[in-house]
Amino acid sequence: MEHSTYKKWSAEFIGTFWLTLGGCGSAVLAAAFPNVGIGLLGVSLAFGLTVVTGAYALGPISGGHFNPAVSIGLAAAGRFKASQLAGYIVAQVLGAIAAAGILYLIATGKPGADIGGFATNGYGEHSPGKYGMTAALLCEVVMTAVFLIVILGATARRAAGGFAGLAIGLCLTLIHLISIPVTNTSVNPARSTGPALFGPSYAVSELWLFWAAPIAGAIIGAVIYRALLSNGNDD
Amino acid sequence: MEHSTYKKWSAEFIGTFWLTLGGCGSAVLAAAFPNVGIGLLGVSLAFGLTVVTGAYALGPISGGHFNPAVSIGLAAAGRFKASQLAGYIVAQVLGAIAAAGILYLIATGKPGADIGGFATNGYGEHSPGKYGMTAALLCEVVMTAVFLIVILGATARRAAGGFAGLAIGLCLTLIHLISIPVTNTSVNPARSTGPALFGPSYAVSELWLFWAAPIAGAIIGAVIYRALLSNGNDD
Amino acid sequence: MEHSTYKKWSAEFIGTFWLTLGGCGSAVLAAAFPNVGIGLLGVSLAFGLTVVTGAYALGPISGGHFNPAVSIGLAAAGRFKASQLAGYIVAQVLGAIAAAGILYLIATGKPGADIGGFATNGYGEHSPGKYGMTAALLCEVVMTAVFLIVILGATARRAAGGFAGLAIGLCLTLIHLISIPVTNTSVNPARSTGPALFGPSYAVSELWLFWAAPIAGAIIGAVIYRALLSNGNDD
Amino acid sequence: MEHSTYKKWSAEFIGTFWLTLGGCGSAVLAAAFPNVGIGLLGVSLAFGLTVVTGAYALGPISGGHFNPAVSIGLAAAGRFKASQLAGYIVAQVLGAIAAAGILYLIATGKPGADIGGFATNGYGEHSPGKYGMTAALLCEVVMTAVFLIVILGATARRAAGGFAGLAIGLCLTLIHLISIPVTNTSVNPARSTGPALFGPSYAVSELWLFWAAPIAGAIIGAVIYRALLSNGNDD
Repeated sequence: MEHSTYKKWSAEFIGTFWLTLGGCGSAVLAAAFPNVGIGLLGVSLAFGLTVVTGAYALGPISGGHFNPAVSIGLAAAGRFKASQLAGYIVAQVLGAIAAAGILYLIATGKPGADIGGFATNGYGEHSPGKYGMTAALLCEVVMTAVFLIVILGATARRAAGGFAGLAIGLCLTLIHLISIPVTNTSVNPARSTGPALFGPSYAVSELWLFWAAPIAGAIIGAVIYRALLSNGNDD
Repeated sequence: MEHSTYKKWSAEFIGTFWLTLGGCGSAVLAAAFPNVGIGLLGVSLAFGLTVVTGAYALGPISGGHFNPAVSIGLAAAGRFKASQLAGYIVAQVLGAIAAAGILYLIATGKPGADIGGFATNGYGEHSPGKYGMTAALLCEVVMTAVFLIVILGATARRAAGGFAGLAIGLCLTLIHLISIPVTNTSVNPARSTGPALFGPSYAVSELWLFWAAPIAGAIIGAVIYRALLSNGNDD
Repeated sequence: MEHSTYKKWSAEFIGTFWLTLGGCGSAVLAAAFPNVGIGLLGVSLAFGLTVVTGAYALGPISGGHFNPAVSIGLAAAGRFKASQLAGYIVAQVLGAIAAAGILYLIATGKPGADIGGFATNGYGEHSPGKYGMTAALLCEVVMTAVFLIVILGATARRAAGGFAGLAIGLCLTLIHLISIPVTNTSVNPARSTGPALFGPSYAVSELWLFWAAPIAGAIIGAVIYRALLSNGNDD
Repeated sequence: MEHSTYKKWSAEFIGTFWLTLGGCGSAVLAAAFPNVGIGLLGVSLAFGLTVVTGAYALGPISGGHFNPAVSIGLAAAGRFKASQLAGYIVAQVLGAIAAAGILYLIATGKPGADIGGFATNGYGEHSPGKYGMTAALLCEVVMTAVFLIVILGATARRAAGGFAGLAIGLCLTLIHLISIPVTNTSVNPARSTGPALFGPSYAVSELWLFWAAPIAGAIIGAVIYRALLSNGNDD
């Protein structure tokens, strides 16, 4: 193991920790606060800003994926070594679990605490807007596919230097602005896994969709990008 | 046809797909979600972020118009070849229609779904705030004219490199913050056309205004820019 | 008159037109829209984005003041020629009046239209939160003073190139987030003058404060900057 | 004392003045304004924008800390001279006190004014969501630790030039989106101290936590950064 490999894993652990703590934390603690709650708009902004902040702080170290679907999509597009996938994904999932644990401690630290859905993802009965499994699948696949196209385009060599972190983070905000009512928005299997371990029991049984759909979407996005938009591996 | 032409069309198709899916999707799925809905502010942010993300990801490929009025205005200002207009506009309209179709599938994927106005544009009875046809025309013309001035200024050679995508996308957010109550905000004939094909029947009959006014406004903006602000074709 | 002088006046006219139309337009048309209105947060964002967009599009032409108090403060700090003040201020005020006129036409273009306060500034009875004249004066002076410090610092030679438009525009958003309840926020005599001519009659009689306080604040900000922060005229 | 030292102190005084006036001012004056109040989302945005604007305007002078915990964390990471800590912290605390005084004058400048909690920080009974002392401590420590990691990463030599002010300011917005319900969010002992002197009497007695936890968190963040992420003192 190279000296720099553990730094990359650390960056992915911390970045996914922050994504999950910030995004799910804002949802659990602040979204429905009486009268002045931040609502779905505030949660959308929070998810995006975890990536904006993580990208500028940690991106130069690990690339700033913070998401197994992103790592897999980048590998499918030839921008990330497949041999590094396992390490990245383990670090991301562990980071998300640690964040969910910390969030659980904070959220239950008051009299009469009720963690509700604990920001888990779900479909059908457990979709915020009661959207069925097909709509949930379609939505997660399409959102992740476009997410990857934005990531690949904004980090291409021909793109405006430095702005990628902003564009990619704000893309995650946008994705949440659209799709929280459908699935509570995943597009990130690690983010779905952390809260599911501490939340209501149905969350784990529906977790398969939030691994399958984002990964499928990410690969589709990578394929579309390479087929229709790319000039070559690094553009 | 050059090899790169289909890439430009692909980028315009995908960018306009994303603009319509993201902007109209946030409006249809999340704007009026009970208690924590994102409201017109969230929808305004979503429309703008489709352009921010599309501009950084796809702008280097096609210029990132995603809007027939923008393409026409840029041509009027001498910044885009008129011979490319037809291909761009077809790609944009097809992208918007594809987005509206996907959004229709997601939005109807729940028990008792009601797509309401489906984010279509309208005036008079079908204006969100019941503004009449003259106010609607005036509003769309003025908004699109300023939009073009911002686009032409922010992409001029003398402008700060790299920031154009942010300035232009946030200009679309601003336009929506002002004008959703008047026309549900178009300034983009493709964005108006996609949802109209799947929405309530009156939408198609009012579509003429959302082609005429944005195109007129874009040309007016281009003329003002050239007459009062420009140093030459590329500034 | 140099050839470029009318371009500067045009840029200041259009930029102040956009500031007034966008900021006051969002307030009049969208702030209190039923259920999904953008609120004071949306209005604050709109005012800031008029400057972000205007700064990137028009800043390279005129400097992007769009505000008589800013022009005067920049002159006091030695960054703008006093001989150009009159032309700039006339262009700014005319732009704001034109914007208020267009907004009036749109806002009254519906059955039973009621323009309410028409986004005018006021104090005492006409303060949104009923703050008295002293609080209003203090608030406008302090807000404009800090605004000038931010403008002077962010456009200094030592500052990060290109980000000034973003920092200055978002500063105006921040100022509105704080002070709309106190005075409806001016910090800009032109923005106050336009709507006052079309709004309720008390607005003109209170207009003096929204010329005096922003200009005093701007000069105070310039003096503080030069005394405590500057390395010289251009830093 | 070097000529430039008083400029640094001035910049830290003004920056922390602005952070406290802007963040706490938006909370006291605008958060719960009837019908159109900016809510916790608006307050979160305001706090972040004080840092965005301060960073671009004053960062080149003093580094733009505006926060004793940040200064201490940067010293712990080897990025700031410990000998400068005392001067910086005094300037920051005085700036926050001045801001709270001005805010008090404005907020009480209306008939029947009620300053409520005056944006002070608290736990238990005085936590906005009634979170206990342990949850408050944990939350403030974790938030400040990540804040320092973001600051250290975004200002490292390998990071994208110019974007640090945006990333760090938006990180403060994100921290508020998560944690206002828990402690009203401090992560900044100066910001806590200013309002406590003018607010309800319990605020001073709980102030210890908002010095201890942010400073502990900042040091933890610096240690984590150096152990897991750094390439050396300046990265």
